[in-house]
Amino acid sequence: MSDNIYKVVEVVGSSSESSDDAVAKAIAEASKRLRKLRWFKVTETRGHLEDGKIAHWQVSVKVGFHMDGDE
Amino acid sequence: MSDNIYKVVEVVGSSSESSDDAVAKAIAEASKRLRKLRWFKVTETRGHLEDGKIAHWQVSVKVGFHMDGDE
Amino acid sequence: MSDNIYKVVEVVGSSSESSDDAVAKAIAEASKRLRKLRWFKVTETRGHLEDGKIAHWQVSVKVGFHMDGDE
Amino acid sequence: MSDNIYKVVEVVGSSSESSDDAVAKAIAEASKRLRKLRWFKVTETRGHLEDGKIAHWQVSVKVGFHMDGDE
Amino acid sequence: MSDNIYKVVEVVGSSSESSDDAVAKAIAEASKRLRKLRWFKVTETRGHLEDGKIAHWQVSVKVGFHMDGDE
Amino acid sequence: MSDNIYKVVEVVGSSSESSDDAVAKAIAEASKRLRKLRWFKVTETRGHLEDGKIAHWQVSVKVGFHMDGDE
Amino acid sequence: MSDNIYKVVEVVGSSSESSDDAVAKAIAEASKRLRKLRWFKVTETRGHLEDGKIAHWQVSVKVGFHMDGDE
Amino acid sequence: MSDNIYKVVEVVGSSSESSDDAVAKAIAEASKRLRKLRWFKVTETRGHLEDGKIAHWQVSVKVGFHMDGDE
Amino acid sequence: MSDNIYKVVEVVGSSSESSDDAVAKAIAEASKRLRKLRWFKVTETRGHLEDGKIAHWQVSVKVGFHMDGDE
Amino acid sequence: MSDNIYKVVEVVGSSSESSDDAVAKAIAEASKRLRKLRWFKVTETRGHLEDGKIAHWQVSVKVGFHMDGDE
Amino acid sequence: MSDNIYKVVEVVGSSSESSDDAVAKAIAEASKRLRKLRWFKVTETRGHLEDGKIAHWQVSVKVGFHMDGDE
Amino acid sequence: MSDNIYKVVEVVGSSSESSDDAVAKAIAEASKRLRKLRWFKVTETRGHLEDGKIAHWQVSVKVGFHMDGDE
Repeated sequence: MSDNIYKVVEVVGSSSESSDDAVAKAIAEASKRLRKLRWFKVTETRGHLEDGKIAHWQVSVKVGFHMDGDE
Repeated sequence: MSDNIYKVVEVVGSSSESSDDAVAKAIAEASKRLRKLRWFKVTETRGHLEDGKIAHWQVSVKVGFHMDGDE
Repeated sequence: MSDNIYKVVEVVGSSSESSDDAVAKAIAEASKRLRKLRWFKVTETRGHLEDGKIAHWQVSVKVGFHMDGDE
Repeated sequence: MSDNIYKVVEVVGSSSESSDDAVAKAIAEASKRLRKLRWFKVTETRGHLEDGKIAHWQVSVKVGFHMDGDE
Repeated sequence: MSDNIYKVVEVVGSSSESSDDAVAKAIAEASKRLRKLRWFKVTETRGHLEDGKIAHWQVSVKVGFHMDGDE
Repeated sequence: MSDNIYKVVEVVGSSSESSDDAVAKAIAEASKRLRKLRWFKVTETRGHLEDGKIAHWQVSVKVGFHMDGDE
Repeated sequence: MSDNIYKVVEVVGSSSESSDDAVAKAIAEASKRLRKLRWFKVTETRGHLEDGKIAHWQVSVKVGFHMDGDE
Repeated sequence: MSDNIYKVVEVVGSSSESSDDAVAKAIAEASKRLRKLRWFKVTETRGHLEDGKIAHWQVSVKVGFHMDGDE
Repeated sequence: MSDNIYKVVEVVGSSSESSDDAVAKAIAEASKRLRKLRWFKVTETRGHLEDGKIAHWQVSVKVGFHMDGDE
Repeated sequence: MSDNIYKVVEVVGSSSESSDDAVAKAIAEASKRLRKLRWFKVTETRGHLEDGKIAHWQVSVKVGFHMDGDE
Repeated sequence: MSDNIYKVVEVVGSSSESSDDAVAKAIAEASKRLRKLRWFKVTETRGHLEDGKIAHWQVSVKVGFHMDGDE
Repeated sequence: MSDNIYKVVEVVGSSSESSDDAVAKAIAEASKRLRKLRWFKVTETRGHLEDGKIAHWQVSVKVGFHMDGDE
């Protein structure tokens, strides 16, 4: 079942639109370098404020991928 | 104040659309069996990835309901 | 670098629309009293249920602002 | 030693008198439905305030009972 | 629903009588300055010892109140 | 994707042989009542001691199963 | 200020009366062996149930005492 | 013992010199507005990097002061 | 019920065979000095690696024993 | 002492045999790519269930190796 | 490998100079009574304030030593 | 705002001088391989003891850098 062995990386995604989009951005960036992404887990949700409003969301995600992927 | 006594169950909801929708799906499923749902709390936000994108969100929620509800 | 010294307050925002909107509402309220808001961090996501559906989201956020802001 | 296998449920008890009484109320309610309760663990102590005073305590407890009990 | 927007403050109450009384003392003090207190949550229970006995309990509580309250 | 909606229960298994066996015992007991068990997560590993040796392991596990299972 | 150097021990006290009394019992026992107890911190509140009621509370406390005390 | 009732605020101090100095800076800033500061607790140690080196430390501290202090 | 009062010590056991054996080793060592050991709780599982393999497991356990035991 | 500088990676190992074997599998996979592995720490123990039994264990481990190793 | 079996004690050190010095003071005190100290881990960093400044740091450390050491 | 997307790595730095220097050493090592380091966060402070004194500090840090950096 080597199919079930993962490596885990942590990425922080950013979006001015929504917290979900910040997660999607993080995963899009990770998928440029790593193949066989399988799951993610949100570990922290933060963001920057400007003029009393949310300028962008910053969401930390752990991403699991098969060990035979490249890094 | 028996009105303030709750039992708590944990449900994991799933949605290909958004993290909020995964919470709503979990609660919709819980409401099929339990009456008098009163509050929820998100305990974990994860998801599955396919082809480098989010296939579906999986969000764990604790749901509190009045003890006189059915389970 | 007094520019990097923050005070942190905790606010709970509420919204019937989405978890992100509850965060935005909390920050909007904070910005009525405090100037120079710089960042936020989500610490808890809960909500109230009515008739088996989400009545409103309640999201706790820590908000950091420059120490020379008013409180 | 099937005698040592437990299921765990989470209950939130409420009392206007004391935090200990809120725990007792939660356990009293659980004992209406479940037999062979064996242990409990307090997981959170909260409460509601009215007119600047404690209106009632709300204490979350995990309750362990033998698996052959009814639910 | 601005009625559901809270600010949260942290207070440490002290009592030589009981842990519950330390919570009540903290809330009594908070109510001198803040209106519309709505809920509390105990975050830490400590105390000082003298002559091998409890001299006083010190309990940390987070207190939530409506944002339109004074601070 | 209702296939991805789970309910989660917490069970404490016991074994005089090993920590892994205590997990297996907990799951065996859960499977007597619940169908479609899908995953588990260990949350605490404890045990009882007699005569300076491990009498039995007691391991807490959360078990996820499809919502259409019986409880 | 060697006066401010503490050693910390962990004790679990038991009482059939109240959670506060379980803390007091733990400290009374610690004071039989250790001099110059200075502070305590509650780390866990559990208990045993018999016949659907609280048989006794078991509260874990960390106790700090001056390093020149005996152990 | 109103002498033992504290309010707690959270401040993030910054220093290019050391983590301890960032704590001192946070407390210096807090002391401009609050009297009767009594204790602090470090809750997070972070910092910014420039050119592969520490540009400044940012340390979060909770600061306790007597309730009769000004804010 | 002085029979229910425990002191708790923390021991780290080591074994080249298994994680369970490291727990057993820790308890064996503790039982050389302390009588009336009653329960244990695993708090951390680590280990050392040599030549890309597990050289030995190191498991931290808290061990509870009756207060009238020797230390 | 550059000998004491580590980088840490997170790997999830899988085994149908035991939790310890899942840790060993994770480390075996890591050792294919990284030299000078020095220590590991278990961060989560989960698994998949099929037909009411453990199909395979999935254990998350952090693995530390000397910074001059390859990744 | 009994060489790898440790007992762990918790000590709180104090210093008016720095957080590192408070750790050193705690270890110096522990070394008066215990032989074969091997490692430490910082668990909490606090301190007392006087006249708006740090009067002394108080740092909690867990200290591991070989089981054959004296206590 | 791809400028706000980070990858996070974990490094353990070592120093015989101070805890701050251990952080600096970790970052110096990371900067040999990674460009555009932006922030760090301390996650654990430990150390080795020899002859009853601190032989070296070992501090774990998470380091964030722009995703277009090399690893």
